[in-house]
Amino acid sequence: MEDLACLRAVPLMAVPGTEPKSGPDAGRSRPDSNLIPGIAIRGRAALRKARTVVADQIEAILDVWYGFVGGTPHLLAYFVDPATSQPNGDYLAAVRKRFGQWIIDTCAANYDDAWLAYQEEIGRRHHRVGKNKTDGVSAPPHIPMRHLLALVVPISVTMKPFLAKQGHAPAEVDAMHAAWTKSVLLQAILWSRPYTKDGDF
Amino acid sequence: MEDLACLRAVPLMAVPGTEPKSGPDAGRSRPDSNLIPGIAIRGRAALRKARTVVADQIEAILDVWYGFVGGTPHLLAYFVDPATSQPNGDYLAAVRKRFGQWIIDTCAANYDDAWLAYQEEIGRRHHRVGKNKTDGVSAPPHIPMRHLLALVVPISVTMKPFLAKQGHAPAEVDAMHAAWTKSVLLQAILWSRPYTKDGDF
Repeated sequence: MEDLACLRAVPLMAVPGTEPKSGPDAGRSRPDSNLIPGIAIRGRAALRKARTVVADQIEAILDVWYGFVGGTPHLLAYFVDPATSQPNGDYLAAVRKRFGQWIIDTCAANYDDAWLAYQEEIGRRHHRVGKNKTDGVSAPPHIPMRHLLALVVPISVTMKPFLAKQGHAPAEVDAMHAAWTKSVLLQAILWSRPYTKDGDF
Repeated sequence: MEDLACLRAVPLMAVPGTEPKSGPDAGRSRPDSNLIPGIAIRGRAALRKARTVVADQIEAILDVWYGFVGGTPHLLAYFVDPATSQPNGDYLAAVRKRFGQWIIDTCAANYDDAWLAYQEEIGRRHHRVGKNKTDGVSAPPHIPMRHLLALVVPISVTMKPFLAKQGHAPAEVDAMHAAWTKSVLLQAILWSRPYTKDGDF
């Protein structure tokens, strides 16, 4: 029942009333430090095992994901420079570098304040409030929330073969994959915060 | 790669520009009828196989889910009548009946206009614009979006043992489970529409 225990904690990770109203963290939700550890007792172990499996497969995983984005016109469009109508290679490369680090961070499963603040930042970088700013690029200004949330499926589905590459028992692969999928969904939920109406998140 | 083809279709199921501005469907997204079939060619087959597996297990599945909701105070709270501070049994029963039908509908995988309109209605029934109205009950007026989306995990995780109950090969169970999980996430995304800022969904 570890997966369900996780779910009990998640909704409380970003309680509206806990958001600082001013200062450097204004508008950012704070984790409930009593609940975060409940997320991860066994899920974290599975993710950290996954880290040892995928550590030397990061570029191969990114190749699959970039192949998917590159083959999906409505996703590739968010990397296109309107001045040239071509995908911006520097932008794609900068995002790819962060995406690789994100795999490692997801498997590290350190649910501290810095991690939570970075989830908020990832959301902002897809929403019109922050898209293109980190890399200083010219590209479409906003990725709709439905696209962001829907990415959970390919990011989950495509990971399983990589988790199976080191010959772990099927039950171990399943546990790593379930923990991965859960973490990706939980993060995508946190990324959706800038998209929601006041009081609705 | 059927799972990825699905993802290409989903974001286009609710293109803002296709929403009727007036009439009985005002504000509701319309499916792109050219893309919907692309969702389901093999995913639909797996879901329909799942239907034969779970058809006589609906009440047992609902027992697990209601056990989870009943054991999760911040979810059970949405069924509590503020006048009595007790969960409203009639409300829980009415929702349970619809939840059972939803399992069957999800496995039927008929992605027609009626299905899409009902996804919008499910979203509204969790959001302050529609919660409590269908059943005419007194209960908290709004379920935050993060709770709604997070339910994808228990609704996915808990289904797998039921899909395995008829002795299908592990690969068949995996395929049914992947199709189930994908469909649940896609539906949860559609349910999130009433929560998003104008132009952000």
